[in-house]
Amino acid sequence: MSDKPTPLSGFPELLPEHRVVERAVIASLSRTFELHGFANIETRAVEPLERLSKGGEIDKEIYVLRRLQAEDSAGDSGLALHFDLTVPFARYVLEHAGKLEFPFRRFQIQPAWRGERPQEGRYRQFTQADIDIVGRDTLGFHHDVEVVRVMAEALAELPLPGLSIQVNNRKLIQGFYRGLGIPDVTAAIRQIDKLDKQEPGAVVALLVSEAGASEEQAWRCVEMARLRTSDTVYLREYVEGLGVEDELLATGLDELVAVVDGCAGVAGERVRVEANLRIARGLDYYTGTVLEIFLDGYERLKSIGGGGRYDALASDGRTTYPGVGVSFGVSRTVVPLLADGALAPGRKVPSLVLVALADEESRPASDAVARALRSRGIATEVAASPQKFGKQIRYAERRDIPYVWFPATDGSDGTDGGTDHQVKDIRSGDQSAADPHSWTPAEETEK
Amino acid sequence: MSDKPTPLSGFPELLPEHRVVERAVIASLSRTFELHGFANIETRAVEPLERLSKGGEIDKEIYVLRRLQAEDSAGDSGLALHFDLTVPFARYVLEHAGKLEFPFRRFQIQPAWRGERPQEGRYRQFTQADIDIVGRDTLGFHHDVEVVRVMAEALAELPLPGLSIQVNNRKLIQGFYRGLGIPDVTAAIRQIDKLDKQEPGAVVALLVSEAGASEEQAWRCVEMARLRTSDTVYLREYVEGLGVEDELLATGLDELVAVVDGCAGVAGERVRVEANLRIARGLDYYTGTVLEIFLDGYERLKSIGGGGRYDALASDGRTTYPGVGVSFGVSRTVVPLLADGALAPGRKVPSLVLVALADEESRPASDAVARALRSRGIATEVAASPQKFGKQIRYAERRDIPYVWFPATDGSDGTDGGTDHQVKDIRSGDQSAADPHSWTPAEETEK
Repeated sequence: MSDKPTPLSGFPELLPEHRVVERAVIASLSRTFELHGFANIETRAVEPLERLSKGGEIDKEIYVLRRLQAEDSAGDSGLALHFDLTVPFARYVLEHAGKLEFPFRRFQIQPAWRGERPQEGRYRQFTQADIDIVGRDTLGFHHDVEVVRVMAEALAELPLPGLSIQVNNRKLIQGFYRGLGIPDVTAAIRQIDKLDKQEPGAVVALLVSEAGASEEQAWRCVEMARLRTSDTVYLREYVEGLGVEDELLATGLDELVAVVDGCAGVAGERVRVEANLRIARGLDYYTGTVLEIFLDGYERLKSIGGGGRYDALASDGRTTYPGVGVSFGVSRTVVPLLADGALAPGRKVPSLVLVALADEESRPASDAVARALRSRGIATEVAASPQKFGKQIRYAERRDIPYVWFPATDGSDGTDGGTDHQVKDIRSGDQSAADPHSWTPAEETEK
Repeated sequence: MSDKPTPLSGFPELLPEHRVVERAVIASLSRTFELHGFANIETRAVEPLERLSKGGEIDKEIYVLRRLQAEDSAGDSGLALHFDLTVPFARYVLEHAGKLEFPFRRFQIQPAWRGERPQEGRYRQFTQADIDIVGRDTLGFHHDVEVVRVMAEALAELPLPGLSIQVNNRKLIQGFYRGLGIPDVTAAIRQIDKLDKQEPGAVVALLVSEAGASEEQAWRCVEMARLRTSDTVYLREYVEGLGVEDELLATGLDELVAVVDGCAGVAGERVRVEANLRIARGLDYYTGTVLEIFLDGYERLKSIGGGGRYDALASDGRTTYPGVGVSFGVSRTVVPLLADGALAPGRKVPSLVLVALADEESRPASDAVARALRSRGIATEVAASPQKFGKQIRYAERRDIPYVWFPATDGSDGTDGGTDHQVKDIRSGDQSAADPHSWTPAEETEK
């Protein structure tokens, strides 16, 4: 390899100091999910193509694997990279159902791949963090409230700007459309989902042409979609005041109120859970709760997460597995926020101490100091070469290592009356005698 | 999806209780690497094909990506999945060199993909844990000692059977072969590497036919390769007693002695670092230290790790980046050891407490107990449905949740003179009153 490589568009890679931030985000999410009893799994990166390809829009973006020098003519392996974590999880549940306990709650934090046109927040490889709860045959509605609450708490722990989890309910939409008398309710949901990109008038035209709605019906759909509120008393009054009577609408409204009320105040000021009757989620399989997540001040990224209830996440013909889940876009959030400085980089190396090296012969003495510090959990490295001490201090500075350790020149461990070890805090310049078997760094550098 | 999926050969997937073990292994490795100042990075899963394909054996195993419905006829994206973490790391160093500090020490724990025939310990998707130190222009030899030592310490922290890190040195082999007068030293190294699979006589024949050695030279090569010892005094005597004089041989011997001596005793009894003059590593780019890792009692898995020194890991034509590193096969080790019970599974869920549910109306009271426990870091879930308490206890048992909490029936928090909360250790059957704001589980369940 003798050429300088150029970055691959759509495949962001982080420098070490940025990767620290991504890892902290993943660790924090994992901690919250585990506090709520979610078990971690990973699925393989590939699925049989026929499990991924549904003939829809997403098909264009699927990466199929081919062996470079396969014996058969086409070379296709029949495998493709997964484009989300939901399809592989559904397959995992079916494949391992006999060995899982239901309701099964899992979290999964892995990359997925889509060959779409790269843009800010949209990548060809991106990491997602998903939580889902899956039942066998049945799954209580209270789990809808639970997954939203868990994700709200998890996001509240992250160093993000404010954000909103905007919730709706497919039953509410479907019941309203049915009560209105719209001929093709499914088509209408797909059209109303375009309100985030298109003018109301254009969506009305689509509702008329694609869903068979009258112009008046279409405007009432668009009108209803305008409500966004966290006040569930007002929400109920508003929806009931629309003058449409439908059993499904009533159930959907009850569920939506329960999710928003159930999440009230759980995640502090920064994470708001609110009803937004525009949220529809075009994908067909949602059957109740639907939601999307938006980051304040980053509306240009569109939603940074989403999810909902699917009464038939998976089925093996005999048993059906209903599920409810939420997905958070780790790359979609972390990469743009690192790029514009909204997330501060971490330290370039984990080391808290650089042990200086007087000359190559005293490397064993420096190694011994490092070993003593590490045995007490203090990340430590030894200088690579015996440069002048000023150079070694600059070496530490360039790596954000806060302390430089100067071993006792007689090789003693500082406890037996020999010369002292010295440790220098290179941020303050303070230097003092220290014992490698008892010294600890000041609190603030422990993060 | 209405069919029951079958497992994909070569793509192992873990149940939650097995994934706990894999995560613990990864966390432990990461902790040791960070204690030694290694920074974490991840590279994207794909590289341009021309960077991966070298026309060698490995080419057959490369998975190339093709967009399912690409506009161009072939559809090939020009991208392929990486088959190790070394090639992507070399590319990362070149691409980001201006923003890295050298010597750059990084660890990387990620999957790689090879379309090879699956067998025990050999998978089509597998996770590796790599550490490398890379310099700009130069890299001190002491880093060879360091990476072996760090990996030895990291492996000693894992719940594995005993294992050996078997070290050799390319300079020693090359110097010996050169001193012997073998015409094609590189070809000879490739042949001697086959001693793990073939009879000595067969390897001798190959040395004669492929490397131009005389039969006597070939037998001396095979003879030398038999030495395996951790006694460096004996090693030095043995090699010097072979009667071949060569400067490179002498340097290689010094380096090998330094690595073995430098690792003596650092990792306890279970992880042995020893010289094995058979280790050659067929790949061409190694230039000094080479090593392979073998697990006691699992010799059938072949090596579970390996690495060495490469004086030109990467080059952009103007600058050369020498490196030294070791790779450990996480999947190759964890998957077979879990399968045969040598590694014990973890708990199926992270929850330590299941809060029982008297009826659906008292869910808020059970939620409040769970919230109080979680606020003190105790992983807790609430029963999915208000079954009879005996059923709820069995629900906890099936999930390996050690404690079941019965909330105070009057909804009090147990501190104001109302009825007591009760907590039951379902392993011992002990049940006692407890306060959700102060109760902590016994130590042994904290793991």
